[in-house]
Amino acid sequence: MKALVYHGPGNKAWEDVPEPVLQDPTDAIVRVETTTICGTDLHILKGDVPAVTDGRILGHEGVGVVTEVGPECRNVAVGDRVIISCISKCMSCDYCKRGLTSHCQTLGGIGWIFGHLIDGTQAELVRVPYADNGLIPLPDGVSAEQGAMLSDILPTGFEIGVLNGAVTEGDVVAVIGAGPVGLAAIMTAASRGAAKVIAVDGNKFRLEESRDFGATDTVDVGAGGDVVEELKKLSRDGLGVDVAIEAVGIPATFATALDSVRPGGHVANVGVHGEPVTLPIERDWINNLTITTGLVNATTAPELLGEITAGRIDPGKFVTHRFTFDQMLEAYDTFARAADEHAIKVIISRES
Amino acid sequence: MKALVYHGPGNKAWEDVPEPVLQDPTDAIVRVETTTICGTDLHILKGDVPAVTDGRILGHEGVGVVTEVGPECRNVAVGDRVIISCISKCMSCDYCKRGLTSHCQTLGGIGWIFGHLIDGTQAELVRVPYADNGLIPLPDGVSAEQGAMLSDILPTGFEIGVLNGAVTEGDVVAVIGAGPVGLAAIMTAASRGAAKVIAVDGNKFRLEESRDFGATDTVDVGAGGDVVEELKKLSRDGLGVDVAIEAVGIPATFATALDSVRPGGHVANVGVHGEPVTLPIERDWINNLTITTGLVNATTAPELLGEITAGRIDPGKFVTHRFTFDQMLEAYDTFARAADEHAIKVIISRES
Amino acid sequence: MKALVYHGPGNKAWEDVPEPVLQDPTDAIVRVETTTICGTDLHILKGDVPAVTDGRILGHEGVGVVTEVGPECRNVAVGDRVIISCISKCMSCDYCKRGLTSHCQTLGGIGWIFGHLIDGTQAELVRVPYADNGLIPLPDGVSAEQGAMLSDILPTGFEIGVLNGAVTEGDVVAVIGAGPVGLAAIMTAASRGAAKVIAVDGNKFRLEESRDFGATDTVDVGAGGDVVEELKKLSRDGLGVDVAIEAVGIPATFATALDSVRPGGHVANVGVHGEPVTLPIERDWINNLTITTGLVNATTAPELLGEITAGRIDPGKFVTHRFTFDQMLEAYDTFARAADEHAIKVIISRES
Amino acid sequence: MKALVYHGPGNKAWEDVPEPVLQDPTDAIVRVETTTICGTDLHILKGDVPAVTDGRILGHEGVGVVTEVGPECRNVAVGDRVIISCISKCMSCDYCKRGLTSHCQTLGGIGWIFGHLIDGTQAELVRVPYADNGLIPLPDGVSAEQGAMLSDILPTGFEIGVLNGAVTEGDVVAVIGAGPVGLAAIMTAASRGAAKVIAVDGNKFRLEESRDFGATDTVDVGAGGDVVEELKKLSRDGLGVDVAIEAVGIPATFATALDSVRPGGHVANVGVHGEPVTLPIERDWINNLTITTGLVNATTAPELLGEITAGRIDPGKFVTHRFTFDQMLEAYDTFARAADEHAIKVIISRES
Repeated sequence: MKALVYHGPGNKAWEDVPEPVLQDPTDAIVRVETTTICGTDLHILKGDVPAVTDGRILGHEGVGVVTEVGPECRNVAVGDRVIISCISKCMSCDYCKRGLTSHCQTLGGIGWIFGHLIDGTQAELVRVPYADNGLIPLPDGVSAEQGAMLSDILPTGFEIGVLNGAVTEGDVVAVIGAGPVGLAAIMTAASRGAAKVIAVDGNKFRLEESRDFGATDTVDVGAGGDVVEELKKLSRDGLGVDVAIEAVGIPATFATALDSVRPGGHVANVGVHGEPVTLPIERDWINNLTITTGLVNATTAPELLGEITAGRIDPGKFVTHRFTFDQMLEAYDTFARAADEHAIKVIISRES
Repeated sequence: MKALVYHGPGNKAWEDVPEPVLQDPTDAIVRVETTTICGTDLHILKGDVPAVTDGRILGHEGVGVVTEVGPECRNVAVGDRVIISCISKCMSCDYCKRGLTSHCQTLGGIGWIFGHLIDGTQAELVRVPYADNGLIPLPDGVSAEQGAMLSDILPTGFEIGVLNGAVTEGDVVAVIGAGPVGLAAIMTAASRGAAKVIAVDGNKFRLEESRDFGATDTVDVGAGGDVVEELKKLSRDGLGVDVAIEAVGIPATFATALDSVRPGGHVANVGVHGEPVTLPIERDWINNLTITTGLVNATTAPELLGEITAGRIDPGKFVTHRFTFDQMLEAYDTFARAADEHAIKVIISRES
Repeated sequence: MKALVYHGPGNKAWEDVPEPVLQDPTDAIVRVETTTICGTDLHILKGDVPAVTDGRILGHEGVGVVTEVGPECRNVAVGDRVIISCISKCMSCDYCKRGLTSHCQTLGGIGWIFGHLIDGTQAELVRVPYADNGLIPLPDGVSAEQGAMLSDILPTGFEIGVLNGAVTEGDVVAVIGAGPVGLAAIMTAASRGAAKVIAVDGNKFRLEESRDFGATDTVDVGAGGDVVEELKKLSRDGLGVDVAIEAVGIPATFATALDSVRPGGHVANVGVHGEPVTLPIERDWINNLTITTGLVNATTAPELLGEITAGRIDPGKFVTHRFTFDQMLEAYDTFARAADEHAIKVIISRES
Repeated sequence: MKALVYHGPGNKAWEDVPEPVLQDPTDAIVRVETTTICGTDLHILKGDVPAVTDGRILGHEGVGVVTEVGPECRNVAVGDRVIISCISKCMSCDYCKRGLTSHCQTLGGIGWIFGHLIDGTQAELVRVPYADNGLIPLPDGVSAEQGAMLSDILPTGFEIGVLNGAVTEGDVVAVIGAGPVGLAAIMTAASRGAAKVIAVDGNKFRLEESRDFGATDTVDVGAGGDVVEELKKLSRDGLGVDVAIEAVGIPATFATALDSVRPGGHVANVGVHGEPVTLPIERDWINNLTITTGLVNATTAPELLGEITAGRIDPGKFVTHRFTFDQMLEAYDTFARAADEHAIKVIISRES
């Protein structure tokens, strides 16, 4: 079969590889119908994630059809059309039992293994460990593209942004960074009662898009104003926003989040950071702040699926560019220049 | 001034009464601009609420302008346009401090005193005790009619229905009874992540209206089907709805709520009941149910106001009939025949 | 091997049966070291639980050593000394993933299957399905008797009484019924901040014992006083207790719980009921009550184990009578006359 | 009357000052019976809190008897023996209504005003604004010394340490710093289910004391071991503690807290910091951490009082040194050398 294989920093190929086979009785094999590329995949290609080694098939998102199941699979059957969760989970270790599947101990302390510690979903076929736990049936009426957004991006914005941020009725929420994960937070914030959702970005296309995802206000970082002051002006009483969701991953945006939040507010970090940040705790020790970080557990995918089925949210909106499997490298090129290409998520699908 | 005065069961009049005066330094006087009638007012007129005595001005909802304040009022000033909360609260007793203002001990264990234990809002002027706590500034862009729905009906549906029912992401919610309070629960359920909201009623007009308020499905009690079975069929997996909100107040509808909820589900009672119900605990002891009851605290009015300002919900939809003060009795007549008149909420306003 | 076998209402025997064998790769076989008898076992013997059929080995509690594991067991190994949870769970169905393992759908909607739908623990050997999920390693320093109390009784009192009752800092908690499960609630209420814990019972021995389990006050139902009034007098302000835990299972005690709780209070039903109760909702619709029911999920056993290891609680106190396997029928006789025998829990252990 | 007056950095005096008088109808005057000194008072004396100006009476803790009340006081009366909360609160602003009284907007955004923005409790008499909200009746059976620990120290350790840290059943909790506020967290952690509570300090006296307050383990920072490794070894599975409470206020201890907590863990900062700290978010973005900061709301004082009345905790243990009013300066000297003097809290009382 064909797959997107990592060959060390800067090198990747869409090449022939052996088909995966069942290794454990709880495994399933899924024939991938649709996959996508995550910002993390770009990080891997830069060599930022040393755990990913030469020869690894990348990708941790997608929708497909089950072609084979191990004898211990009870919830999935051959022929099922499924969403592949980016988080694998044993569901028997302490972390899984507590709902913190992102840190599954059976998998070495991290539930994100596709395209990282085992071969991933940017391939014609993928082996799925603990298939009962990690595959979610795709209901009629939900498209493969919508489903693929439930593998990672939508649960990440919701769980690590909105839920960690404890968004509640009437809140004013600032989302710093309107890339895919920021837009996912924007899309799901209303379902926890957010009144005002402010997208903060320097890219005019993303700011425009953010309104279609549910932003009620936007702040253009490039417009020369004082972003923190603008956010405070948009807050309920000038004291700051209730929740600031950091969805970029650099010190400047983390500082914006901390500076713009009110006493008693929440800063939910979703961004992947490459260097430490400063916490001005000599100012904030008194401010009753809550700061959270986290990798997605992806446990809310079924609930978000309910919202899609009911027509409340449409993650199909994420998809700006479509490719077929043999255009995988072109898809990577487009996504690598996402800002210029006005790309949010690129979808790569099997030719029908 | 003129006011709607209760004169014992079956008797009421729109008549001249003395104007209210400040009694305590924390009082304010509000010139009522818009008021409305609650189902409770009809109960009072039937004689069902013996605490209401001859001579009492009815009404506990409305919007107006502050005309006078006591020396201890700090948050409200003469000229402020305000929503009058149906719940008065001292904010110093244990119950108020814990957020259970519905049972304010300083007020005798019940925060609902307007049109009950003191004179109410169906009048040209009303005295408001603890005005700092019970008056909510009406922001620009929110109409008096929208504001009047925050006095009681919208917080009741939200707090006692949606929040008590612990509605969460992806839930299937049945609202038994699509009268005003049921519609309030329907309108606010999406802000806690409800995926499917099913209106259950026997009145075709209300079922139609419910869709405009946010119902995704309806079950017509008069259609001859098995309501419980239909609700189970609409649930995620046939096991029952996640949350059933009882918004009628009779044994039959309470039983429907209990029968249609899944193991682990919630029954939130909002209905005002006149007789006991049976709890089939020999069946339900094992079902991990949560059953809640309650009078509104109205503490979420500011948060709901945020949702109105942001354009997420429009409680103006409740208003089906409009009257002026001198048509108060006609308004009562209409509301008393709400089902036939296709009335949801009637609004009575000062002639401008 | 020998086992306690049910032979229809009124009939049981300690008799020879075939040894259990592995049926699924996720099964384990445990050599039982210590087991105990639950009130439910007595109900079964009366014929109250028709799902239990002739030939079934009873029992759902115990501690033992793993003697055999299926190839898919990853967390348990031969030689492990383990607590057998009364709740079996697949951990892959929707209910298990949400923590409501008591209603595991893979097991037919109920996680309690030992001594009910499959053979149980009152035997020399027992087959444990989903052994990775249902067996809890017994740490050094925790006795087999202490461990056996974590199979069912202690988690039941804690989860269905204390946690469902939302016991919090400073609460006054009434526990109606000081049998084993009531005592379990009493023992664990302090760990959620209960200030006052009132044991209510008619048995003087149990009332005395309750103080050793952590009760700060007792009310003797047989003393002729008005129990509800006495509970209100013991409450913070005379308005009623914060939480009433019903641990008997008859209409009279359920009524006591409802009548003695304050506005805003919680009634947590733990008792197994045989007939419906009346809910005076014409009184309580306004009282902001929360009423809960439930079968234990037993998910808190590891946390409770932490409290035992730390020396905060000692469930060894439950054990009033000790027998060996060949005295199984005598143990049943004693437990059937628990009140007279001053029995709380009887322990039946393998002769060493 | 006599009072402890601040006269700029380094200068204080126990001197004659005018008696306070009622200024607002919601004020009360309290005759102080017992007061104490807080670490914050020492910071003020160093000049670290510029808002405190020359002539200010210090102190924000104490117990006394009401001698005068304004006409709007409803909950307190002349003759009442009361605890003076360190947090004043209007209970009418948005922050107070949400329970975040530490940031009362009516008081300028901070509820801590005694000995800060208005005259404090280290005096024979003190004026108490919003007396209904800020005075807590001292029940019979609770000593003045116990009561004085509810003004600030015990609620601070509980709310900002234990509650913010989300301590729950079975948790392993590290308290970094066993000074008064660390000991307060240690004393109250069991009431939220902590299994293991580890005191971390370099002072042998405090480590010994900590066991009497409820610590199950201690780590001596001065013993030369790797503190983080020792904490991990004491954790449930070697992955780190569940909750780390920082109760010192310097970068090194904040780093210890962050480094010793497990994925999914909580760091609750209680320490008052004078400089920024580094957050290694390039490591922790993936670790699902929650970091909290805060000034006490003191809203849990009534609940903690319930625990004292029930005999569960005894904050009398804090008191190591006792003085009379005329020994106020000596008391300051002792507390300023707390470590050497083996002082935890010093109590200064009116001569009886």
